[in-house]
Amino acid sequence: MPTVYVTRRAHFNAAHRLHNPAKSDEWNVLTFGKCNSPNWHGHNYQIEVTVEGKPNPETGYVVDLGALHRIIDTYILEKCDHKNLNLDVDFLQGIIPSSENLVIAFWNQIAPHIHEGKLVSIKLFETARNVVEYRGNE
Amino acid sequence: MPTVYVTRRAHFNAAHRLHNPAKSDEWNVLTFGKCNSPNWHGHNYQIEVTVEGKPNPETGYVVDLGALHRIIDTYILEKCDHKNLNLDVDFLQGIIPSSENLVIAFWNQIAPHIHEGKLVSIKLFETARNVVEYRGNE
Amino acid sequence: MPTVYVTRRAHFNAAHRLHNPAKSDEWNVLTFGKCNSPNWHGHNYQIEVTVEGKPNPETGYVVDLGALHRIIDTYILEKCDHKNLNLDVDFLQGIIPSSENLVIAFWNQIAPHIHEGKLVSIKLFETARNVVEYRGNE
Amino acid sequence: MPTVYVTRRAHFNAAHRLHNPAKSDEWNVLTFGKCNSPNWHGHNYQIEVTVEGKPNPETGYVVDLGALHRIIDTYILEKCDHKNLNLDVDFLQGIIPSSENLVIAFWNQIAPHIHEGKLVSIKLFETARNVVEYRGNE
Amino acid sequence: MPTVYVTRRAHFNAAHRLHNPAKSDEWNVLTFGKCNSPNWHGHNYQIEVTVEGKPNPETGYVVDLGALHRIIDTYILEKCDHKNLNLDVDFLQGIIPSSENLVIAFWNQIAPHIHEGKLVSIKLFETARNVVEYRGNE
Amino acid sequence: MPTVYVTRRAHFNAAHRLHNPAKSDEWNVLTFGKCNSPNWHGHNYQIEVTVEGKPNPETGYVVDLGALHRIIDTYILEKCDHKNLNLDVDFLQGIIPSSENLVIAFWNQIAPHIHEGKLVSIKLFETARNVVEYRGNE
Repeated sequence: MPTVYVTRRAHFNAAHRLHNPAKSDEWNVLTFGKCNSPNWHGHNYQIEVTVEGKPNPETGYVVDLGALHRIIDTYILEKCDHKNLNLDVDFLQGIIPSSENLVIAFWNQIAPHIHEGKLVSIKLFETARNVVEYRGNE
Repeated sequence: MPTVYVTRRAHFNAAHRLHNPAKSDEWNVLTFGKCNSPNWHGHNYQIEVTVEGKPNPETGYVVDLGALHRIIDTYILEKCDHKNLNLDVDFLQGIIPSSENLVIAFWNQIAPHIHEGKLVSIKLFETARNVVEYRGNE
Repeated sequence: MPTVYVTRRAHFNAAHRLHNPAKSDEWNVLTFGKCNSPNWHGHNYQIEVTVEGKPNPETGYVVDLGALHRIIDTYILEKCDHKNLNLDVDFLQGIIPSSENLVIAFWNQIAPHIHEGKLVSIKLFETARNVVEYRGNE
Repeated sequence: MPTVYVTRRAHFNAAHRLHNPAKSDEWNVLTFGKCNSPNWHGHNYQIEVTVEGKPNPETGYVVDLGALHRIIDTYILEKCDHKNLNLDVDFLQGIIPSSENLVIAFWNQIAPHIHEGKLVSIKLFETARNVVEYRGNE
Repeated sequence: MPTVYVTRRAHFNAAHRLHNPAKSDEWNVLTFGKCNSPNWHGHNYQIEVTVEGKPNPETGYVVDLGALHRIIDTYILEKCDHKNLNLDVDFLQGIIPSSENLVIAFWNQIAPHIHEGKLVSIKLFETARNVVEYRGNE
Repeated sequence: MPTVYVTRRAHFNAAHRLHNPAKSDEWNVLTFGKCNSPNWHGHNYQIEVTVEGKPNPETGYVVDLGALHRIIDTYILEKCDHKNLNLDVDFLQGIIPSSENLVIAFWNQIAPHIHEGKLVSIKLFETARNVVEYRGNE
């Protein structure tokens, strides 16, 4: 069977702030602009997780999308949805929650739990105009 | 000239929390669920402002959409974008920032400044699934 | 408090066929074209339910959108999602499942259960290009 | 049978320029800004036509959407798609092609040909952010 | 001339059911859940076909998108639109119509007919949340 | 730090016409169809620029998206927005403005100015259905 890439999209809503505590307030404002706003702002994040694999001849599935969704839900959405990404999320402690850092952290969260197919990409949309993608340490 | 309805769409990203300080923590959790999460969450808000009027025969415009956008920008976006709607916005002090309360407050913010056409509707999208509309005290 | 219109969007995927059993096959093909295809076709339906009301001063809500979603889920989605609208749905028995007939039937399904706010509109998107709206017997 | 509102969406791509030939070049630049750019610009226009009526008990249709699409196609798309709205369109001669003027002209084009249902609204999206609606001489 | 990737998007509406006739009903329900619903369900499928090639200096085209659309229309849409993917489609006989199996079958349908450019990807959206991509036997 | 792909989306509205002046009018009409319409037509173009790089540990950024937007704005949008792509744009002189040729020209415009991260892809949407992508001379 040939290789197919399967993508599941999910959403969560969270607050965050870009701030490097090792730097001065001036540096932070200059570097991050309004994204450094002290009382947080937030986004409707959209996440797209892609796994590759060969369809199982008995099911036609590379992966059960319901099972993939439960992995995303358990290890990302349950921890991030309606939360503050700087304060509330165990696996983001000490990380500046830029989209780049988030997408890498999300990869590390779910990769160990994906046993059907191989995780090959996570895309994170902070807004419709700003998107990041991580493809692992290829 | 006949009446035409003209709509301008804009966006802002903000943090908020649904919480009634006059009530107990139990009441707030029970009432607002995860929207009461203490360290805030956030949204990519989308706002659509509609004015009605008769096209000016010299321009074909009911309203200069650039001017309408500047009103939205000055009185809503500049004050709300990348801000905390509970803490940072002068015209939202003492208001629970539900979408319903926000859309009424946004109306009161821009209505006095719209002199071309008549403000007839503001829609606010908190997410793609949750939308409110206010049409003024008809 | 002023009146606000609150909309919740939901989705379901279903099969259907446009066919009037009181008419000849020729009439059905002529009238419904490929929508009369005998072995069914299907759609990702999108439904938007709007209620109007005055925000509750204690919550800022016209309606708890979670509760509204549960009504839509119980009385529409649970019965229609991944089903055949001609064969499987109790409240659609004997109804040609055109979008117009569906949106009226959906109204009748959920209207008796909406006690917060007043149901004022249901929109049904069969595709992005074909949409119907029912506003009740105004 | 109750009243239902049925909407059909269509698209066309056209060039235009906002310019009032009775006015000076200075006035035109000041009034229309970059929309007055002399060598034209263009848009992917989206049009949404809504008719109201009672579903026919034999079909469940307010209107045959295929027939409605053919009216939109014949009287609007065929004349405007891949055309210059200032130069090429017979029914727009002498009209400044603002969205407001276009939507009124489109109404006048198709209203005489709609015999099933009653035309109640045309929306025209110049961009995702700029939308006009005409509801006739209500 | 450098290589450019050109994508054409198309749509069709179809019914299907996930069911492996070699397995028991219990296995099918357990494996496919509501996607195994006996009387079919359906989707608005979106397909995106990508070809790569070097733009022809005389036209600026890698491929005439009208010609590419006609290939998609003839070999996929005409056979699948408003049809039952389990029952009605010659090239899907004996195939469980999962998105993975569909996208491979679609590739095999159109690949022999693409003579301008090289087919490099087909994406199939079953819903906005569930997407598959096939890139051929790379 | 691992590699992340960062994408910024932007928009512009422009007129164009597909025409090869070295060929006869008959050839042009036959080849380009309605895209050869003499008085121009136009589009709401959407452009997506992707750069790859390793997040800076001090900022979490691969690239400052504000800076990337200013490059897109200065070298593409300022020159193309509300312009005629055949007549008005210095860097498109002598180029048939097909999407393929445009996306290559846009790459050449901005590549020299991107010093944070490495430009790896530009996508250009002429409409929602027609998209091209250029990945450079890989």
